Order: sequence, then C-alpha cells, then structure tokens
Amino acid sequence: MKFKLTILGSSGAVPFKDRFPTAHVLNIREQLFLIDCAEGTQMRMSRFNIKRGKINHIFISHLHGDHIFGLPGLLTSFGMNHREAPLHIYSPKGLKGMIDGLFPYEEKGPPYPIHYHELDTNQSQLIFENKEVEVFSIPLQHGIDCNGYLFKEKKLPRNMLREKIEEYQIPFQQIPSIKEGADWINPKGEIIKNEELTKSSPEPRSYAFCSDTAYTESIIPIIEDVDLLYHEATFLHKDIDKAIATHHSTAQQAAMIAKKANVQQLVIGHYSARYEEKEDHLTEAKAIFKATHLAYDGAIFEVEKK
Amino acid sequence: MKFKLTILGSSGAVPFKDRFPTAHVLNIREQLFLIDCAEGTQMRMSRFNIKRGKINHIFISHLHGDHIFGLPGLLTSFGMNHREAPLHIYSPKGLKGMIDGLFPYEEKGPPYPIHYHELDTNQSQLIFENKEVEVFSIPLQHGIDCNGYLFKEKKLPRNMLREKIEEYQIPFQQIPSIKEGADWINPKGEIIKNEELTKSSPEPRSYAFCSDTAYTESIIPIIEDVDLLYHEATFLHKDIDKAIATHHSTAQQAAMIAKKANVQQLVIGHYSARYEEKEDHLTEAKAIFKATHLAYDGAIFEVEKK
Repeated sequence: MKFKLTILGSSGAVPFKDRFPTAHVLNIREQLFLIDCAEGTQMRMSRFNIKRGKINHIFISHLHGDHIFGLPGLLTSFGMNHREAPLHIYSPKGLKGMIDGLFPYEEKGPPYPIHYHELDTNQSQLIFENKEVEVFSIPLQHGIDCNGYLFKEKKLPRNMLREKIEEYQIPFQQIPSIKEGADWINPKGEIIKNEELTKSSPEPRSYAFCSDTAYTESIIPIIEDVDLLYHEATFLHKDIDKAIATHHSTAQQAAMIAKKANVQQLVIGHYSARYEEKEDHLTEAKAIFKATHLAYDGAIFEVEKK
Repeated sequence: MKFKLTILGSSGAVPFKDRFPTAHVLNIREQLFLIDCAEGTQMRMSRFNIKRGKINHIFISHLHGDHIFGLPGLLTSFGMNHREAPLHIYSPKGLKGMIDGLFPYEEKGPPYPIHYHELDTNQSQLIFENKEVEVFSIPLQHGIDCNGYLFKEKKLPRNMLREKIEEYQIPFQQIPSIKEGADWINPKGEIIKNEELTKSSPEPRSYAFCSDTAYTESIIPIIEDVDLLYHEATFLHKDIDKAIATHHSTAQQAAMIAKKANVQQLVIGHYSARYEEKEDHLTEAKAIFKATHLAYDGAIFEVEKK
C-alpha cells in the first residue's frame, strides 16, 4: 500500500553540481507515475532504483526544456528494451511535434504506441483515473501553458472482517456486496448490520505537484488538505524581483501556499543555480510552514497508510 | 601544453548504471572540443570539472539519440548563462532542423550565434583549423551518415634558445623569422646557422574518435600512427552477429584496427547494456593490442609532450 514520492531531479533550469532538473516519480500501490522528465531522468531512474519499464503514464507540466529534455532518451530506451505496452503522455499542447521531430531517420519513432493527451491549462480537470487513482490538472501561472498535477487515491470499499465470515458462515459470493455496504441476512432471516461485518478502508492519500509557477492563490481550492505538496521555490525571498520577472516563486511564497491550503507536508525544490546551498530556503519556508522539507536528488517522501 | 581526453559517457545506446551515453571532451592546450553530446553531457561536465563555457566547437558523429540528446539542454544552459560567443557545431546534415524544433515557444532558440556546419560523410576532409589544431572527418560505416574525427596538433615553429639571444645579441624583431628557420647574420656579416639558435618544437600529438562504426579498414589510412585512438567496442566477439546486424564493432575488431593502424594507445567504449562488467572487453582487446584501455565515465587519458 505504498504512497511514495522519489525526487529524481531537484534543480531549476540550469543543472548545478549534483542537482539534475525536474523529474519526480510517484509510486501509488506499485503503479508508477512519472511527473516531468528533464534531461537525465532515465539515468536518475537507474541511480535511484526506479524500474523504468513500470512507467505507463507521464505527466508533463510545461514545455520548457528543463522539464522535457529527458523524454527523447527515455522513449528511445523504452524502444530498445522492446517495450510493447502503450505509453500515455499528458501535457499542454505542442509536445508531440517537438518529440516527433527528433526521430526523422530510420528509427521512425519508438516501436510501441504513444498516446499524447493534450490538456487544457485554464481549468482543473480530471485527466486520468483507474480503479485506485485519479489525477487532476492544476492550472499554474508560468507565462506559458502550464499545469501542476494532483494525485488522489480513491476510497476503497470497506474491508471485510475475516472472523465474521466464519462466525456467521457467510458465503463467499455475498462478500462483494457486503464490502460495498450491504447488511447480511442469514438463513434464519436475522439481519447482521454492515458495521459489525466490516471496517472502513484507509483514508485516501494525495500528492500535489506545483511547478513551475509564480505565487498564485488560485491553486488553493484544488490542493486544499493534501497530504504532500511539492511547490517550487526557485528563489529566496530577497530575490523576489527575479521570481516575479521569471514567473517563479520564493521559498516564503511556497510556504504561504502550503499554510493557506492547510496541507500536511510541504516539499520545496527547483532551486536556482545561483544558490550553492539550500539551507536558507528551508529556514525561510519553515518560518511560515513548519512541516517543510527540502527536495534533493534521490530524496524519498512517503505518506503512511491512514 | 595539455593534450587531455576526458570521457563523459562510456555507454552504448541505453545508459546503464553509472554509464552515461557518448560524450568526450578533448583539451588541446586549453582549447576544449566536445565530441558527441549525449543526454546528460552538461551534468557530466559539472561532475568532472569541465568548464562548459569554454566549449566553442562541438563535433557530432551522427544523429542517433545517444549521441545528440544532450544538445538541447546544453544549448539552453549556455543561453541561461548569458553566453555571447558563437558556437560551431559540426555534424552530418539534418541536425539544425531537429534542434530548432525544440524551441518553438517564447525562447526562440538560444540568444547567441550557432553556426551549423553540415559535413560530407563520404570522404575525409579538413573541417576545422586554427593556429594550433586541425580536425579531419573520418567517414564511418554505421548504416546512417556518420563521421569520426581526427584531431591533430599543428607543428609549432622551432623554439628559440634563450641563451643564444643573449650570446649573439639578437634583436627581438628578428626572432619570429629565426623561429621559422632563418639563419642570423650578425652586424659583422657572420652567419649563425639556425640549428645553433633553435631547437625543434615538440612533435604534434593526435587523437582519433571512431564511433559508431562497423569494422572497416577504410579508416586505417586516416588514423594511422595516431597517439590515441578511441574505437567503439559495443560487443564482445562472441556476439559478432549482433555487431554486424547493428553496424557496430566488437572489442576484438577495435583492437585489430588499432594494430593495423599502428596507433600508440587504444581506448574502447560504447558498451552495450547487456554487459554488466567490461573486463571481458579488455581481455579480448588486449590479446590483440596490448596498449588498450577501458573508457569509463570520468576517465582521463593524457598524451605527454613528445
């Protein structure tokens, strides 16, 4: 029942020393979701033990190079590893043309199906769901079409209490409907209330990825109460003028958003290469929102079962 | 008077663990030449202390992704670091269109001049020279337009012997012509022979980069007698059928070329991800050509002044 975020790259646009640019992998119950795919993502996966073959869904925030230049290499490696499974890529419009232009020669693009899903960036939408997970877009303000992404577990059916199956001699074919909330009427016509037979499944967990973006409170209703929020913090607040000029945020602003959205934990990253160390980012954010953590390449953040 | 090769990436097409795909930096007397530019090249430069701002010339062997997918990121970072110096990129034709397609948005390509030089891949040509260095293309056999590159120091003028300047009271304005070979006629009309006044400058050094390629003896006349040869060795000879099918070479074949071309030192690399270890490549090559070395990410090979 994993809910585990791995930071593959924590740098801003220009990589700096051991900081690669943005890519995150979210593991929800062994389903892997790749979020942004900067240059070096496939190498970071090797380094941090992410099995790239398990990636079936890639979510791209926007089409700046430091969020997509790892795609061509990753898509090529999938092909060379004889991938056959379809790959789904979600992004603002324009990505397909950029990628296709890189395969003009005998290898006419990767030999497995790629489905590009072009997203609206003006309103939050449900863009993916399966039995266990749903993903919503989060429109961001970055001077270019840009979405963050909200990943939410779905609430699972109630869990059957095993000892009750035996105690009341409940036939197995009745179990699915009891899990969905039905009472059990035994052969004598006695009603056993659902509450006695089941317990609630764990509360769904959630992760919101917000990068790149200027400070915008428009995202708060979407990300409210999430367990884990990643919000970019390219600059320190003393450089707020640079943040405004480049449609980025400061550590202080990231913390303000976390506080106003009442999230559980905040992770900051996307540090500008002008900062050799990132401790000042942490101090600045923690002054406003205590449960702040620094992203670094290889960092892991897990949300426990609730 | 450096002549120093740094391997930034030693992997074949699919990166494997700590092996990034192909990129080399050759430092000839503090002029840096980048040869191929696979994904992650700019991060490897940071890691191995290569100052990326000193790169003015990039030589691309061919347009497969594992030799070029680091270009978009590197070109972007140059721009973000306020580069103004022109950049020269040498490659088979088609590269410019691929790169331009990646900058469709507000950043309309990098804000410094890029000169693309499209090369013939059918015959060896002098493609670059300055006062100290000349670079020749080496047509390779890879089932796609592909060049290796031969880097040669130029023979410098003879070195003036300082003590002779004093002994014969030679005016400074005469020194350039003496370095070029002229004798010195002193005010009394006596001829002092050039050999007494100068000594030969060091012998020029050379490096040949041959990747990717099937075994082809056509390159031997071009690379004959080089000090340092890099020849790809994607496969072990037991997998010769795979080498033939993919237009690559085996370690044994790389060594055969080194031997027949009478080179001083051989470096092999571009290992397929199927080989976890590369000691077998070394053993196989050394059986034929003793002075063989394994490329690995971060390896440095220097050619001493001769």
